[in-house]
Amino acid sequence: MLQLYFFPMACSLSSRIALMEAGIEAQYHLAHIWTKQVVDDGSDFLGVSPKGAVPVLALENGERLTESAAVLQYIADVKPTAGLAPAFGDPDRYRLQEWLSFIGAEIHKAFLFPTFWYKDDGSLAKPRVRITQTLSVPSAHLAEHEFLVGDSFTVADAHLTWALLLLRPAGVDIAQWPSLSAYLGRMQARPAVREAIATEMALRKAMAA
Amino acid sequence: MLQLYFFPMACSLSSRIALMEAGIEAQYHLAHIWTKQVVDDGSDFLGVSPKGAVPVLALENGERLTESAAVLQYIADVKPTAGLAPAFGDPDRYRLQEWLSFIGAEIHKAFLFPTFWYKDDGSLAKPRVRITQTLSVPSAHLAEHEFLVGDSFTVADAHLTWALLLLRPAGVDIAQWPSLSAYLGRMQARPAVREAIATEMALRKAMAA
Ligand SMILES: N[C@@H](CCC(=O)N[C@@H](CS)C(=O)NCC(=O)O)C(=O)O
Ligand SMILES: N[C@@H](CCC(=O)N[C@@H](CS)C(=O)NCC(=O)O)C(=O)O
Repeated sequence: MLQLYFFPMACSLSSRIALMEAGIEAQYHLAHIWTKQVVDDGSDFLGVSPKGAVPVLALENGERLTESAAVLQYIADVKPTAGLAPAFGDPDRYRLQEWLSFIGAEIHKAFLFPTFWYKDDGSLAKPRVRITQTLSVPSAHLAEHEFLVGDSFTVADAHLTWALLLLRPAGVDIAQWPSLSAYLGRMQARPAVREAIATEMALRKAMAA
Repeated sequence: MLQLYFFPMACSLSSRIALMEAGIEAQYHLAHIWTKQVVDDGSDFLGVSPKGAVPVLALENGERLTESAAVLQYIADVKPTAGLAPAFGDPDRYRLQEWLSFIGAEIHKAFLFPTFWYKDDGSLAKPRVRITQTLSVPSAHLAEHEFLVGDSFTVADAHLTWALLLLRPAGVDIAQWPSLSAYLGRMQARPAVREAIATEMALRKAMAA
């Protein structure tokens, strides 16, 4: 069985959404990204992956795969009938890769990551200006399309859903982009997405308590 | 013919290296990433891609593809005999995607990008600490392997070669990681890599003059 190392509401949420949308049963291990402990058994998360970052997907053969763009494509390809990624050879596969890179690099690493991890040094003015320009890209696309790639839900939507959810606690009100807030509403209305978020929000609350 | 919009020594260098390693003839257009002008004909680069960032690959059908991770995989798949990416379906394809994401997100967007674009605000202390931890990942891998994926040159190597080249002007001396500097030396000894770099260095010098 596939095993996902995750931290509630971190970027591993996209991978959980993908697994649930595909109806793939998996084992979930909470890995604490600050203390680097696997909460299940107290083991060292750096022993699971030296990067110490979620998501980590443990494959059936024991290998471990990291990086959302790779993990999400792997999950999609495990169950092609779920339609979570265009098939290899379909030109839209590159559009999927383009959005995964954009979300992972431009929204996550250029903005969300410094906002949450470097929050105390008052240095976020420039990323904050830039994120407005960055978000105009998916905003323009989603004003014309229901989904990021083709006309159905893919792992790129799973990843953008997570990123948009995190923008509010990062201080960006997506109501500025009606197409983005309408999209997020549509995504959150999907049963698998709703359940994935509810599960992680409950864990997050339990940790805070 | 494929057309690559590039800026000399920017991350589009990886795509040029990939095209040259594959022996794919292409047209190259210098797009100025600060003025947003296509230097050939003075046209607006934002008309080519609203992101205003290189690389942009104009495909034979007129569509344009952005994001290094997608562009590099596209180029590799145009000429599979060049072996620049494991075939779709090969488990190593996910390793390629993992490295492309890591380089594009963790080295480029978390470190190189703020270093070059936000350089004046004195806020780079934390990214600078973090890059040391980031570079330990490819350093450990390359202490044991000649290439990032499998046992031959792939587009992931093209991308890491670019990133390592830029670390020096970004103030990071890779001599701290002997496996990284040895790797960069091996990559730069490849005729296509050497020619790609020489072409862009000459353009860069001409622009500075
Ligand atoms: N490029 C990685 C980023 C992974 C990442 O930054 N994960 C965060 C949570 S959203 C984390 O675990 N950070 C812990 C750390 O970096 O020490 C991906 O796309 O998966
Ligand atoms: N995530 C993109 C990043 C592209 C990017 O940042 N390109 C830089 C040059 S290395 C650029 O053109 N920047 C201009 C700008 O962002 O305005 C990729 O991987 O291709």
